[in-house]
Amino acid sequence: MSNKGGLEGIVVADVQTSKVDGENGKLIYAGYSIEDLAAHSSFEEVFFLLHNTRLPNASELEEVRSQIASQAVVPDPVLDMMKVLPKSTPAMAVVRTATSMLSAYDPDAENLTDKDVARTKAIRLTGQVTTICAAWVRISKGLEPVAPRSDLGLAANFMYMMTGEEPDETASAAVDVYLVLLAEHGMNASTFASRVITATGSDMHSAVVGAIGALKGPSHGGANAEAMKMFLEIGEPENVAGWFKTNIKEGDRRIMGIGHRVYKAPDPRAAVLKEHGERLADSSGNSKWFDIAVKLEEAARADEYFIERKLFPNVDYYSAIVLYTLNLDIDMFTPLFVMSRMAGWTAHIVDQMQGRLIRPKANYIGPFDLTWKPVSER
Amino acid sequence: MSNKGGLEGIVVADVQTSKVDGENGKLIYAGYSIEDLAAHSSFEEVFFLLHNTRLPNASELEEVRSQIASQAVVPDPVLDMMKVLPKSTPAMAVVRTATSMLSAYDPDAENLTDKDVARTKAIRLTGQVTTICAAWVRISKGLEPVAPRSDLGLAANFMYMMTGEEPDETASAAVDVYLVLLAEHGMNASTFASRVITATGSDMHSAVVGAIGALKGPSHGGANAEAMKMFLEIGEPENVAGWFKTNIKEGDRRIMGIGHRVYKAPDPRAAVLKEHGERLADSSGNSKWFDIAVKLEEAARADEYFIERKLFPNVDYYSAIVLYTLNLDIDMFTPLFVMSRMAGWTAHIVDQMQGRLIRPKANYIGPFDLTWKPVSER
Repeated sequence: MSNKGGLEGIVVADVQTSKVDGENGKLIYAGYSIEDLAAHSSFEEVFFLLHNTRLPNASELEEVRSQIASQAVVPDPVLDMMKVLPKSTPAMAVVRTATSMLSAYDPDAENLTDKDVARTKAIRLTGQVTTICAAWVRISKGLEPVAPRSDLGLAANFMYMMTGEEPDETASAAVDVYLVLLAEHGMNASTFASRVITATGSDMHSAVVGAIGALKGPSHGGANAEAMKMFLEIGEPENVAGWFKTNIKEGDRRIMGIGHRVYKAPDPRAAVLKEHGERLADSSGNSKWFDIAVKLEEAARADEYFIERKLFPNVDYYSAIVLYTLNLDIDMFTPLFVMSRMAGWTAHIVDQMQGRLIRPKANYIGPFDLTWKPVSER
Repeated sequence: MSNKGGLEGIVVADVQTSKVDGENGKLIYAGYSIEDLAAHSSFEEVFFLLHNTRLPNASELEEVRSQIASQAVVPDPVLDMMKVLPKSTPAMAVVRTATSMLSAYDPDAENLTDKDVARTKAIRLTGQVTTICAAWVRISKGLEPVAPRSDLGLAANFMYMMTGEEPDETASAAVDVYLVLLAEHGMNASTFASRVITATGSDMHSAVVGAIGALKGPSHGGANAEAMKMFLEIGEPENVAGWFKTNIKEGDRRIMGIGHRVYKAPDPRAAVLKEHGERLADSSGNSKWFDIAVKLEEAARADEYFIERKLFPNVDYYSAIVLYTLNLDIDMFTPLFVMSRMAGWTAHIVDQMQGRLIRPKANYIGPFDLTWKPVSER
């Protein structure tokens, strides 16, 4: 089989959304470094940037913010379906099902060809997916969902809909940075899945639902939840050395959130999230999880196996710390990733519309020239 | 951009399920020609063949039939959700949403690693998807869904659940042949989407839901419905010549269902379906649609453009005639394709489990080294 099946290095599209420079540990969105954007931009600004390949002016920025917020309402039948689901349903399965159901109430769902309509749909769907995520936090606890407010940005709206209270500014800002950092990342597996689906001429809801299914995997977006479960298992900073020895050096486990298919240098998003994780740890007065993460990173970076293979913490490693310190349930970590990546997915989907069918080849290694026999002769 | 983005000729997996020989117009499933299987096999036998790379003996065949039938029950909350949807919702969007919702009630939904469990889940999901398809035919007409019978094969069960009456043998046999022919087809776009999703470590429901979304596209499974709409537009056999001249020769339209990414010779499935289409036309006393299809095929095959490009009717072209003559709504054509392809998708998903993350590359063609400026300076 060529290429080990992972399609490493195979180019499938020209894009203007982002460049992932894995060798040098650099990430840019449409020309701007991720550090620059994390320091200054909002999620809405990044959404506009990814869809238009330029930063918005003041009125454009306010327009995209208000459009996302005002269209974020989720139809009642979708919320009712969520209320019926077992409370133990994984949040990602809920988000996948609810997003799929949204199409039945979207007047533009079956417009498969008009890119302007698709951009409007992307704005609506991004707001609605955020509402679905916040609603599930409440519904899964037996609480009534809270409707979105049209005056807030996406990060603050999420916090408001989740808690039902005026959103805390520090927490909203931390969520916003997270949303900026995770919004887009080259031809990752979920983005690629959305392009494969779009290339058949299918609709945006189908493509986003497929992407959600891909992001759910523990080797992709599900890794942030797995990283946090690992930190919880370690439990205390003084357990790090022993845990590392038993499970990694002498055992056959991997450190969740360390290593990345593309980055052979530190993931630039991890550095930003580490800073924010430290700040949140200080302000919350609970630095235990941050300390565990730092100690484990140090153990790995001092170890020959990790040095030789150029394995560094990726975006999932420190985002787990940030999200946990913000009191988010672990089950909601990957849905937050969905909220952010909606920006990148939808930009890729619009770009892929009316593109060429993506159909690779399978190498048949089975038998030839067999002749069917009646079941009595088998 | 390499390879025009379509990944033509790029091998992504070694498989034992099927070989598509596009140059010679041959298709085999695990060693058996599609003509041989269409003449002798049932859908259940093909399901077993694709999952086990050999034909079942008598008790194995009865076991897979009875397991699919007895586990085809769809939980009430899923049927209730379908009843709430607008009756105008496209059937494929309904099947996508309902299949996604099934995971919340599947005890094995989150078992991501055990291949034996995955095979059991594939059997259950294949039966349930068929029940969902039949239920939507009734629900969309305001009728109560009918529960599956444990004594029937999948094709007959579908006809029974759709009509609520003892299934007609000729019709069930025609559906069964259709299900055999469409069950698997190399690395087509929906199968590939299911593998991309599975390769992140995600669950079977996510992978199948993504595949349904891909099949929905008019350049993939949606083509059978598009072909039928074209035949209806032509309306009468005597209109074919004029329609061909105006729309194809002098216009810029394509003939839906003629031409295929892989086949540069007649699609062997089309030949089998053409035979069945003729037989059904004769027995139903209505040969109009079959006659239109044959006349249009003749017009295309006499035309230099089609000859030079080796464009022949594909599986969608004559399956449209077969399904329409069986009184299926056009909106249900692609869901029937889903019922069949569940066999191939789930075999590929089990094969891909624990495989390598599929992550190709994007070629960045945007700007570099831009510096963020405050919105007031833009």
